[in-house]
Amino acid sequence: MATESIQAIADEDLPYDVFARNCPSRHVLKDVTHAWGSLTLAALQEGTFRFNELRRRVDGVSEKMLSQTLHALERDGLVHREAQPTNPPRVEYRLTDLGREVAERLRALIELVEGQLPQMLDAQRAYDAREV
Amino acid sequence: MATESIQAIADEDLPYDVFARNCPSRHVLKDVTHAWGSLTLAALQEGTFRFNELRRRVDGVSEKMLSQTLHALERDGLVHREAQPTNPPRVEYRLTDLGREVAERLRALIELVEGQLPQMLDAQRAYDAREV
Repeated sequence: MATESIQAIADEDLPYDVFARNCPSRHVLKDVTHAWGSLTLAALQEGTFRFNELRRRVDGVSEKMLSQTLHALERDGLVHREAQPTNPPRVEYRLTDLGREVAERLRALIELVEGQLPQMLDAQRAYDAREV
Repeated sequence: MATESIQAIADEDLPYDVFARNCPSRHVLKDVTHAWGSLTLAALQEGTFRFNELRRRVDGVSEKMLSQTLHALERDGLVHREAQPTNPPRVEYRLTDLGREVAERLRALIELVEGQLPQMLDAQRAYDAREV
């Protein structure tokens, strides 16, 4: 979505509604719940990370995907990127205050999924058996 | 992921960890936080829906995507599909108990995103201005 159209919607002071296809809240929700986005936010809840540390923590993410994910989250104001003036520069990522709030709610969701996984795996097996 | 490998991991009684690339919890998290998945779960929190009603509520979803999304959520044990024995059959979708728990946590996340959107749009504008 172009920056102009986000601006136009924001300036009309409409209530934001993720169910409406053109609401900018849907785009932010997508950044946050995107597979790598949610894992990156949840990882950063544990502290400040350098790029390669984060890549190890979010097992399986490619360099390119992590880089894109961090840019999107930084643009949404959820992640702060700081380059230390060392040589070579040391770049660190951490959550902003808003990012922390979002990460807490994501973490609540992740904990539920991890905790109820046996029940979900049972459901998957029952579903697959029925389909055969 | 093949059903066999999910089974193998589940039977080893490992703690589930979404950060581990082969953990089945990551696959369920993906179904739940998938763009259409999260909107569908949040919509179903409002009650029982027929397919076309749901399609209108989740503005912008295609018939094919909604159908795939509902199958994935049904397989994970989060959505219950019921075909009434009428002619033509009336098919209804509603959340299971587990689906309701997941939808509540998703809703908390969505409400935060909708509520804090002005702050996020400001961040996006500042980021875009800096990049030019």
